Amino acid sequence: MIVLKRKEVTIIQLENKEMRKKHVRKNMSAWMSPHTNRVHVKKKTWRTPATFQKSLKVTLVMGQIFSLLPVVGICSDDPMNVRFVYTSWKCFYSTFSILGQIYMALMCVYNFSLFLTSLNNVAPLIFYTTSCITMIMFYDAARAWPTLVQHIAHTELIDPNYDKKLTIKCNITCAVVLTLALLEHTLSLLSKFAAASVCYPDESVYEGFIKHSFPSIFQVLPYSTALGVLTQFLHFQSTFIWNFSDLFVICMSYYLTSRLEHVNERLLEAQGKYLPETFWRTTREDYCRATKLVRKVDDVISGIVFMSFANNLIFVCLQLFNTLEDGIKGKGECSSRTKGTPLLGGYEAAIYFVFSLIFLISRSVAVSLIAAQVNTASEVPVPVLYDVPSPAYCVEVQRFIDQVNGDNVALSGLKFFSVTRSLLLSVAGTIVTYELVMFQFNSPSTTSTTSTVQPNTTTIAP
Amino acid sequence: MIVLKRKEVTIIQLENKEMRKKHVRKNMSAWMSPHTNRVHVKKKTWRTPATFQKSLKVTLVMGQIFSLLPVVGICSDDPMNVRFVYTSWKCFYSTFSILGQIYMALMCVYNFSLFLTSLNNVAPLIFYTTSCITMIMFYDAARAWPTLVQHIAHTELIDPNYDKKLTIKCNITCAVVLTLALLEHTLSLLSKFAAASVCYPDESVYEGFIKHSFPSIFQVLPYSTALGVLTQFLHFQSTFIWNFSDLFVICMSYYLTSRLEHVNERLLEAQGKYLPETFWRTTREDYCRATKLVRKVDDVISGIVFMSFANNLIFVCLQLFNTLEDGIKGKGECSSRTKGTPLLGGYEAAIYFVFSLIFLISRSVAVSLIAAQVNTASEVPVPVLYDVPSPAYCVEVQRFIDQVNGDNVALSGLKFFSVTRSLLLSVAGTIVTYELVMFQFNSPSTTSTTSTVQPNTTTIAP
Amino acid sequence: MIVLKRKEVTIIQLENKEMRKKHVRKNMSAWMSPHTNRVHVKKKTWRTPATFQKSLKVTLVMGQIFSLLPVVGICSDDPMNVRFVYTSWKCFYSTFSILGQIYMALMCVYNFSLFLTSLNNVAPLIFYTTSCITMIMFYDAARAWPTLVQHIAHTELIDPNYDKKLTIKCNITCAVVLTLALLEHTLSLLSKFAAASVCYPDESVYEGFIKHSFPSIFQVLPYSTALGVLTQFLHFQSTFIWNFSDLFVICMSYYLTSRLEHVNERLLEAQGKYLPETFWRTTREDYCRATKLVRKVDDVISGIVFMSFANNLIFVCLQLFNTLEDGIKGKGECSSRTKGTPLLGGYEAAIYFVFSLIFLISRSVAVSLIAAQVNTASEVPVPVLYDVPSPAYCVEVQRFIDQVNGDNVALSGLKFFSVTRSLLLSVAGTIVTYELVMFQFNSPSTTSTTSTVQPNTTTIAP
Amino acid sequence: MIVLKRKEVTIIQLENKEMRKKHVRKNMSAWMSPHTNRVHVKKKTWRTPATFQKSLKVTLVMGQIFSLLPVVGICSDDPMNVRFVYTSWKCFYSTFSILGQIYMALMCVYNFSLFLTSLNNVAPLIFYTTSCITMIMFYDAARAWPTLVQHIAHTELIDPNYDKKLTIKCNITCAVVLTLALLEHTLSLLSKFAAASVCYPDESVYEGFIKHSFPSIFQVLPYSTALGVLTQFLHFQSTFIWNFSDLFVICMSYYLTSRLEHVNERLLEAQGKYLPETFWRTTREDYCRATKLVRKVDDVISGIVFMSFANNLIFVCLQLFNTLEDGIKGKGECSSRTKGTPLLGGYEAAIYFVFSLIFLISRSVAVSLIAAQVNTASEVPVPVLYDVPSPAYCVEVQRFIDQVNGDNVALSGLKFFSVTRSLLLSVAGTIVTYELVMFQFNSPSTTSTTSTVQPNTTTIAP
Repeated sequence: MIVLKRKEVTIIQLENKEMRKKHVRKNMSAWMSPHTNRVHVKKKTWRTPATFQKSLKVTLVMGQIFSLLPVVGICSDDPMNVRFVYTSWKCFYSTFSILGQIYMALMCVYNFSLFLTSLNNVAPLIFYTTSCITMIMFYDAARAWPTLVQHIAHTELIDPNYDKKLTIKCNITCAVVLTLALLEHTLSLLSKFAAASVCYPDESVYEGFIKHSFPSIFQVLPYSTALGVLTQFLHFQSTFIWNFSDLFVICMSYYLTSRLEHVNERLLEAQGKYLPETFWRTTREDYCRATKLVRKVDDVISGIVFMSFANNLIFVCLQLFNTLEDGIKGKGECSSRTKGTPLLGGYEAAIYFVFSLIFLISRSVAVSLIAAQVNTASEVPVPVLYDVPSPAYCVEVQRFIDQVNGDNVALSGLKFFSVTRSLLLSVAGTIVTYELVMFQFNSPSTTSTTSTVQPNTTTIAP
Repeated sequence: MIVLKRKEVTIIQLENKEMRKKHVRKNMSAWMSPHTNRVHVKKKTWRTPATFQKSLKVTLVMGQIFSLLPVVGICSDDPMNVRFVYTSWKCFYSTFSILGQIYMALMCVYNFSLFLTSLNNVAPLIFYTTSCITMIMFYDAARAWPTLVQHIAHTELIDPNYDKKLTIKCNITCAVVLTLALLEHTLSLLSKFAAASVCYPDESVYEGFIKHSFPSIFQVLPYSTALGVLTQFLHFQSTFIWNFSDLFVICMSYYLTSRLEHVNERLLEAQGKYLPETFWRTTREDYCRATKLVRKVDDVISGIVFMSFANNLIFVCLQLFNTLEDGIKGKGECSSRTKGTPLLGGYEAAIYFVFSLIFLISRSVAVSLIAAQVNTASEVPVPVLYDVPSPAYCVEVQRFIDQVNGDNVALSGLKFFSVTRSLLLSVAGTIVTYELVMFQFNSPSTTSTTSTVQPNTTTIAP
Repeated sequence: MIVLKRKEVTIIQLENKEMRKKHVRKNMSAWMSPHTNRVHVKKKTWRTPATFQKSLKVTLVMGQIFSLLPVVGICSDDPMNVRFVYTSWKCFYSTFSILGQIYMALMCVYNFSLFLTSLNNVAPLIFYTTSCITMIMFYDAARAWPTLVQHIAHTELIDPNYDKKLTIKCNITCAVVLTLALLEHTLSLLSKFAAASVCYPDESVYEGFIKHSFPSIFQVLPYSTALGVLTQFLHFQSTFIWNFSDLFVICMSYYLTSRLEHVNERLLEAQGKYLPETFWRTTREDYCRATKLVRKVDDVISGIVFMSFANNLIFVCLQLFNTLEDGIKGKGECSSRTKGTPLLGGYEAAIYFVFSLIFLISRSVAVSLIAAQVNTASEVPVPVLYDVPSPAYCVEVQRFIDQVNGDNVALSGLKFFSVTRSLLLSVAGTIVTYELVMFQFNSPSTTSTTSTVQPNTTTIAP
Repeated sequence: MIVLKRKEVTIIQLENKEMRKKHVRKNMSAWMSPHTNRVHVKKKTWRTPATFQKSLKVTLVMGQIFSLLPVVGICSDDPMNVRFVYTSWKCFYSTFSILGQIYMALMCVYNFSLFLTSLNNVAPLIFYTTSCITMIMFYDAARAWPTLVQHIAHTELIDPNYDKKLTIKCNITCAVVLTLALLEHTLSLLSKFAAASVCYPDESVYEGFIKHSFPSIFQVLPYSTALGVLTQFLHFQSTFIWNFSDLFVICMSYYLTSRLEHVNERLLEAQGKYLPETFWRTTREDYCRATKLVRKVDDVISGIVFMSFANNLIFVCLQLFNTLEDGIKGKGECSSRTKGTPLLGGYEAAIYFVFSLIFLISRSVAVSLIAAQVNTASEVPVPVLYDVPSPAYCVEVQRFIDQVNGDNVALSGLKFFSVTRSLLLSVAGTIVTYELVMFQFNSPSTTSTTSTVQPNTTTIAP
């Protein structure tokens, strides 16, 4: 018992130490300065630190316009104002949007069960189902959002991050992705208008366009302009959701990477130097805090990451397959090339297809690479820690090494996969394999069909 | 030699300590209370702890009704009463059932060698063979069951678990799975009766049903009602076994997860606090005991896990393939849609198919996810251990980290694979690949067949 | 400098200790006996220990009869007598056999380049090429054999192994595998004789048999009885080599597993007990010695392991493919079923096919499982080491844990893959995938071919 | 504060130690010699050490002739003379070559969009695109080259390497690879000349050859001799780049392996001996330095490694596919076999095909194996470290083990994959799978085509 009593004393002392730690840290650069091999921390002017709230403000506001992440107080500077209120109009808007998406998905299911299966028929079904699930995931994330924001704010208070470029990076990415998404959507509308003017010449332009764009709805329900506008809005929302979930994952990854880089910077400056145990301890604690942040964020957004990756995988496969099969110029029965519409001279579909495919692939690759940077940044400390000179080696360095080697710090897709650089390679391999198999699966039937036509013509000839 | 003698003394002292450990543990919360940063363990009223025996009682009784796990004393509260007796009626029942299943499997093999291979022909062969092997696996597990139960009881004595929800969870899961299985079986019978009434209009309803249901038996043997009833019972038993092995894996996983969660709870409350080495030591020992339990359980049930996963993989593949190929409404020669039977208006087969597929997939996913929770729960301690403050860090924490990182705690399929969340993803990938390849493998021949018909009709025409 | 001098002294003392270690170990059970928690090592009577030389004697002699592993002194008890002599008759025999196999392989290459590619044509080419490479691998292993045997003998001297069952296990396995191989070869001969009597009715039985069996040779060279006998002998040798390489891998795995089990036994008895550091040290050193043995053996035989696994993978794929495509009864143009030969009533080919396939698959699975036991046995210490009570925990235990977790102890195929249980699963997955793809690759052409015949007959009809 | 002051003192002392370390190392062999168990380091005569600059001089000069790695001072002995100068003629040459390759790639893209997709059409597009990207990668590597060379020189100064064989190995490999590449290119020219003389009999030999070789260019642009020569030079350059990137990766791997082997040699001599902590410390530092070198080199050349592996994977797939489909003798419409050209009797294409395929596969395997040796060499220390006797075990040994086990030292392809022996196996598996799928994807259409021809001829006959 005496031994234990003594331990208690130590603990209390340590607690006091812990309380004084903040002071010590502030003073550390002071008393470390006379040494020759200190870490040259850049002198920081009293700028305002880059907080999570500020960095993601624009992106989240864009999301809320389309009913995602219905949280109150997203623009406020005080994280305590961020709340999830079931009775807020944002929640109502979100709920109605989810119901709309469920309605679209159900129409597709119904249509699917009537006019049976083909790969092209499956695409809208998957599209609306996934966007519906993504919305639910965002709604779910919104409920955990206030706690997350407060945890992040707490972490930022302890160790503020002055990475000025973070906010700018987030905003530029937001602008670029959404502009390109708008451009793609516009091209899609143009291409559909052109096709509709060929296929539905008897009807008004808008009616034709709507009927051509949403066959899964208007094969079942009668056309009315109101329903058309609603359907088009829901479709626009789906397209936005898809793009936004990628954008959201990118911005969250930016933030997490920036926090890890903050720790790495200090470590890389310390490489090979003789530093006291205190340095390794505080750095390890900072690293630990950053990885805890990654884990907490992952708990909240892993559903969105999963949907984002699944969506990209499926649609890259489908789009590539369509392109390889039909060629980029399209082969549909409503091809507008024969007529030559005024605007883009009949090449609307081709331009849309090429642009859409390139945009889709580059967006998918970008999300994968940027989200994988969280993992890459978490592994930077390893070589520095191996390089610690023997006299400066201590139990703190060992714990640090054990943690960096043992822990897998990365965003994950519902914990099913963790987003690393090697994931991208295996996804690419999967896409190539599926493409080859799917391509093959359609091609023989085409050639066989041709083979049945030929004999007919020749036997009829004589 | 003197040095070693001294060590002996230490050992004896330690042994005494070990003996007194229980007392210490009980008193620990007492002497730890004055500290400010103790672990707030919830005050436990003197409820009866949730034992393994009680939690699984209902499930195991259900299994024994269908001759699985023939162990005596399953309902007893004293684990010492659980015995495997070769001469008990349960063993006899089990042996006869195994012989019955072997007979079914052999009939399928014989039938298979007579009327050669097609994918539909393979399905019953696989079905009876796997259910036969599963029964043998359960018989095998029964022999190791008493030792396992006693080991578990011993562990529960040292560290009782008051998770009240465990028993309820097991019983509800048991009820849900078996009810759905019964519903599926009933739908299957209905669909077969309907088909039999179309195909075998000349025979009595029951004879037609039996002949339609078990072509692999009655293409070889002449029909008799007794044989029909026996065959039907054996088929019912097979269906039950398949469902029960999934249920069994789920319940065992519940129990193991609950034990690991018990340790995790205490750890999560300790996160970031300054606790004495004793706390880490006892927690590590508890964790060690829990992982040992997982290992012991896995040694006994890994065969059943393997069969459960293999079965689910094979039948999801086959069922999906059938559905994709024929559409959900069926394409068989005995389709009852043309006639419109009274009960479900000719949609028996369609309803059965859809329900069966959804049930099968959701059951498979559920088994995978719940069994993977054992692995997930075993990795919860890691972030807590990285977070231990430097002054409280000790060799016990290091051992704990080493163990959690180094050890792979999970249920396994005969040690060939361990059940983790990432397994589910790779199984899903395998299913998609096989589906694509199998789908393709049948589709070209269909189109080719069409191509052979067309030329004929055209050449005959002129 | 003084500090270092002191270290030298310590080192010298320790060296003396090291020299006395053997005595200490022998006496250890003596001085440990009064303790209550000692390891109960079974009293060993003075039996002769199971040496490597004795255990593998029969197997290696069988191999040398067919020119494999041309090492002098394999039957001697003294490992110093084992030598690789370039001028021994065994080496000459081996060299001639390799030349013979190269000749067979070259004939196949030539034949292959003349009568172009089909999957059936590729099989003999692969067969002779692989058996040729396997022979070279064995020749290579023979050169490193004496050093290996002496290293093993040295290890056995330090820590003799009294596993009496080892020699018996090796000899029984040798007998079973070779008997079954002989039976398979006999069935193959019978089936070929039967086919030859149908296809080559004009020639003598032996000439027909030879011409039917080795089309790749006698489509190029004229027939002569001498050449026929030589060819048949070389073919017999190839078949033997294939079987023997599997057998060799099994026996080596038996030995290595037995050495690791020897350490594990002692450890499992020590589970949870309070043992001095000396115990953990000697056990760790024993374990270290066993793993070093695995590494040394792997360096010598990894080429043979690679060939054995590659061979099994390729031929399971080919054989399964042939069986699935043609059915078990064969479809060749020389089918003897129509005639009904006296001996097995025309079912020679069918019986051979079924037996061969079952033998091949079970042998492949057996090799994989038994070779994977080396890896499994090397991981047994982990749970015991996690279970070491805190007071008995020492740096030796930590080193032991680090080693067992960090080291991957397994036989390997040229270091490309290491033989573990999970390997078997991934190989099985690969086989299923390749089967599905290959099956599909042949099936459409068959249906197309049928489609070309049908129109002809119908158009000719009118 | 006092405690920390004391630490400073220690640090300063240690720094002094660090400064004296070099002297200590030189003297180490001296004061270690009286011990019985020292490491017998071979006496080194004062040869000139094998520097990085000298070893790769010939290879890099060869590269610069073809505009790769435009760095000034590659032949100089002083690493300080190596500079990247934007205004040097090497940079201009490099820039012009890149523009040329971009022009070739764009022509292929344009041609591709005109005359649509087939696998043969894709090959030149991939070829020029990849060689273009590879050139850019080399240009990029050149910019980081001076820093890398200086870092390497610094490392060599601390621990010079006397591996005399290194330079010879690099030069021989350079000679062999480039000679074989030249031979392959010559055969390719011969085969194209022969084909051109059959297909373009009306035109001059050179014009026909150019038109036949570069259909993707001259289907768009009119022929002129100047353009032909330029195109041919750019094509020659592409071929060279492809071969050179493999050669470059091989030579860099040689160097890195040699540095790691240098450490391993010392370690293997120390196996099982009682050595002071200083030995383990210096060895660990040497190992650390070697792995840091691998990391730095990988940062610079990982793009080139990626392109080299991607290129090899793609072209082995394509070439194998072409060979399996058409047979080795070719099936093109310009086959020269019918005419029998004077030089190689019409077998130019066949010889080229076989040689090219063998060269391609063996080069790919060689690159993989040699680059994987870096990883293999980095894992050699593990068994030695496990073997350190208990009294000599110290914190340095533990750090060493932690580092070797935790760190993944290998060249990587843009960090997407790391080059290990198991990579080769998975690449081989991928190639086999893709081959099977692609082969199958073309074969049914061929048989279907045949089936369309047959009915015609038969129906026309009567």
